[in-house]
Amino acid sequence: MKTGNGVIPANDWDVMITGGTLLTMSETMEAVENPSVGIKDGIIATVLQKEKQSVNSYCANETIDASGCIIMPGLVNTHTHLPMVCFRGMADDLPLMEWLNCHIFPAEASFVNEKMVFDGALLAMAEMILAGTTTFCDGYFFESKVGEAALQAGMRAVIAQGFIDFPVPDNLDSSKKMAVATRFLAKWKHFSPLVTPACFCHSPYTCSPETLANIKDAARNADVPYLIHLLENKDEIATILKRYGKKPVQHLQHLGVLDEQTIAVHCNWADQEDIAIFADLGVKVSHNPESSMKLAAGVAPIPEMLQMGITVGLGTDGCASNNDLDMFREMDTAAKVHKVITLNPTVMSAKTVLNMATRGGARALGLDQRIGSIESGKDADIILLDMNKPHLTPLYNPYSQLVYAASGADVITSIIGGRLVMKDRHLLTIDVDSAMENVRAIAANIMSG
Amino acid sequence: MKTGNGVIPANDWDVMITGGTLLTMSETMEAVENPSVGIKDGIIATVLQKEKQSVNSYCANETIDASGCIIMPGLVNTHTHLPMVCFRGMADDLPLMEWLNCHIFPAEASFVNEKMVFDGALLAMAEMILAGTTTFCDGYFFESKVGEAALQAGMRAVIAQGFIDFPVPDNLDSSKKMAVATRFLAKWKHFSPLVTPACFCHSPYTCSPETLANIKDAARNADVPYLIHLLENKDEIATILKRYGKKPVQHLQHLGVLDEQTIAVHCNWADQEDIAIFADLGVKVSHNPESSMKLAAGVAPIPEMLQMGITVGLGTDGCASNNDLDMFREMDTAAKVHKVITLNPTVMSAKTVLNMATRGGARALGLDQRIGSIESGKDADIILLDMNKPHLTPLYNPYSQLVYAASGADVITSIIGGRLVMKDRHLLTIDVDSAMENVRAIAANIMSG
Repeated sequence: MKTGNGVIPANDWDVMITGGTLLTMSETMEAVENPSVGIKDGIIATVLQKEKQSVNSYCANETIDASGCIIMPGLVNTHTHLPMVCFRGMADDLPLMEWLNCHIFPAEASFVNEKMVFDGALLAMAEMILAGTTTFCDGYFFESKVGEAALQAGMRAVIAQGFIDFPVPDNLDSSKKMAVATRFLAKWKHFSPLVTPACFCHSPYTCSPETLANIKDAARNADVPYLIHLLENKDEIATILKRYGKKPVQHLQHLGVLDEQTIAVHCNWADQEDIAIFADLGVKVSHNPESSMKLAAGVAPIPEMLQMGITVGLGTDGCASNNDLDMFREMDTAAKVHKVITLNPTVMSAKTVLNMATRGGARALGLDQRIGSIESGKDADIILLDMNKPHLTPLYNPYSQLVYAASGADVITSIIGGRLVMKDRHLLTIDVDSAMENVRAIAANIMSG
Repeated sequence: MKTGNGVIPANDWDVMITGGTLLTMSETMEAVENPSVGIKDGIIATVLQKEKQSVNSYCANETIDASGCIIMPGLVNTHTHLPMVCFRGMADDLPLMEWLNCHIFPAEASFVNEKMVFDGALLAMAEMILAGTTTFCDGYFFESKVGEAALQAGMRAVIAQGFIDFPVPDNLDSSKKMAVATRFLAKWKHFSPLVTPACFCHSPYTCSPETLANIKDAARNADVPYLIHLLENKDEIATILKRYGKKPVQHLQHLGVLDEQTIAVHCNWADQEDIAIFADLGVKVSHNPESSMKLAAGVAPIPEMLQMGITVGLGTDGCASNNDLDMFREMDTAAKVHKVITLNPTVMSAKTVLNMATRGGARALGLDQRIGSIESGKDADIILLDMNKPHLTPLYNPYSQLVYAASGADVITSIIGGRLVMKDRHLLTIDVDSAMENVRAIAANIMSG
């Protein structure tokens, strides 16, 4: 990061953010009071610690006054199923198998189509932008439609096409998985700097060894992330052990699908051996505490993973199991649940969690060279929170305040790749009323179905 | 509840709320679509299920359009220490004894005075009203100042004067406790229908048997609630067992302080014997999951308590250990944490938690004849939530939506005892800017101290 008072030509910046408190979330966690952040061509051009008398020496096409605000990197949601907003609150507080087999799977079989995926994803993006998320990693059917919605919303996205060994709405002939994967990756690989394609194998118990390995080959050939739900529930261990004679992580290791571009989602039942394998092979982890609490799935041993140097990103999971996409609430829960599970209040600090939701998430998705912190040369994914509110007063420690007291509703402005997507809580890329109307129509259809 | 289309004289109501969805939270959990709620002299006069053609047949001095809103009883926060907003985020993620002995106790010894208590409580009330709470039970020093702030804010309050066996800012001579208690209770007993006085003994390990019993006598004589922190941490069991030869609950039972007007706060380490004693004696419980998670204190066995018929209310605890006063977030956490602790997604439903935050809380505080549900004859403590938002769309199940997706920021209007205290998110009884300024000045003093 460049911090100084160098001479900056007038009108050199497209957007300038001035005032407030900047949390860079850089490796050194530098904070800058009363900064001036200049953005040019979508990139953070410079970060200056501005002297009051020089306020007028810089200018830009658009200047954002951040007085009384915290300026920070946009949040990175490393795991979600956006179109499932259409099922938000449809079936809660039920036993897992009843929830899946009597509600979620039948609804997906009947109502998932390209329009549902696009409309659901777009509403989810409205919700995410309003709550400070600028990058997400999604996994679902018809994933190209999520990519199209992301381009419309101006959000940064990792779109992971889903694979599973039974017929699904977008891939009725499951033998053609490789063709689907190859076509999807080729289409999106160089399509837009905002969108990164990826592959998502549902789990070791719903994908055959062949599917797991073949899809990994496709992802590896395209040099993109590969995601898998792993060790979400305890039962999975016995199931895989019985079927393949190995525990799930060792089964995947044996298939050669674990490497630095593999993101293991959940990992609630990872043991010391599993953690050692992840650390050894550079596997990344996506932590979704609220979903795993609501589904009574378990609590992942994240403190142990961090201690072993594993990269962990935070995620909300889909809206059928959370039921919102607010990463601020997710941070609060992440910080608290590990404390009570270990009966140790020091295991998961506010800074650690905020790291997980920014730089850690960016690293998990392979995007850490471009996003995750506010440093010159990085893409300008920046959010502002209005701290002039009763529940955010007084302010001793901005990290504590963001994790333990702020919520998504405190985010007022959001910039993604240098483009303003929300200003003063008005969405600039999404017609929010029609996005809500479209999803209400889908829900009405589901209810009457 | 009266639901019908009886003839209502024009202008008979002070306030009328029309439209939207009403969740009465009555014993039968009745919900009414497109209702008309009439308020007269601070009391809910009637609840009508209005036909569309008769919209104009009723009128009132003030009509509130609740289209697209959920109308529900205001939330009841059964345990907090409001003035501790002044310490919000001052010291987090620390070992419990370091937090208490190096940060909280020294700050309280140096900075707690009547002005700090009033200013802190008033800011906390702004935060609570903005998040849908209409009734709170507070315990702190100089508790009369909290009562004065509640009257200014127009909030319904149980103010519990604190007692502890070492010198504290408002009671340096600890031998005069009985006089303090008697004077406090006499002052507030019939002062205002909004304010109920109570006594708060800090804990079995900081109050002698004599203090515990004497203060209970004072509370019993005045017919008011008696609160005590109980079984918050595991250590307490060994401490009390060593000191008195009994476990904490049996120690209190032996002293005769457990009855239907006793509210045991936390109870994280209550065992089957303790729960049986609570059930037998009608002891009420205040559940504060977020605070106990953040302090790594434990998770109370609330499902078992509910099964035994114990009345449980929800609470946020103070802002030094949460760090907010948002009862919606607290409900979300309460529903989720018990699921994951028991690995059973059915143990704590959204309805159960919403009950705990409304009618259960009212019953815990002895106010269930007056508040906790929307039924004719009850005091008009009512909130409206704007459901026309991306994170609350679509709407299948209002109980799920409120617990798992809504937050305090979705509350737009609040009525307490028939008086509008917030409309369209504007506070009508508190100057929020000066409330924030006053607490910032206290915090600046603490930081420089």
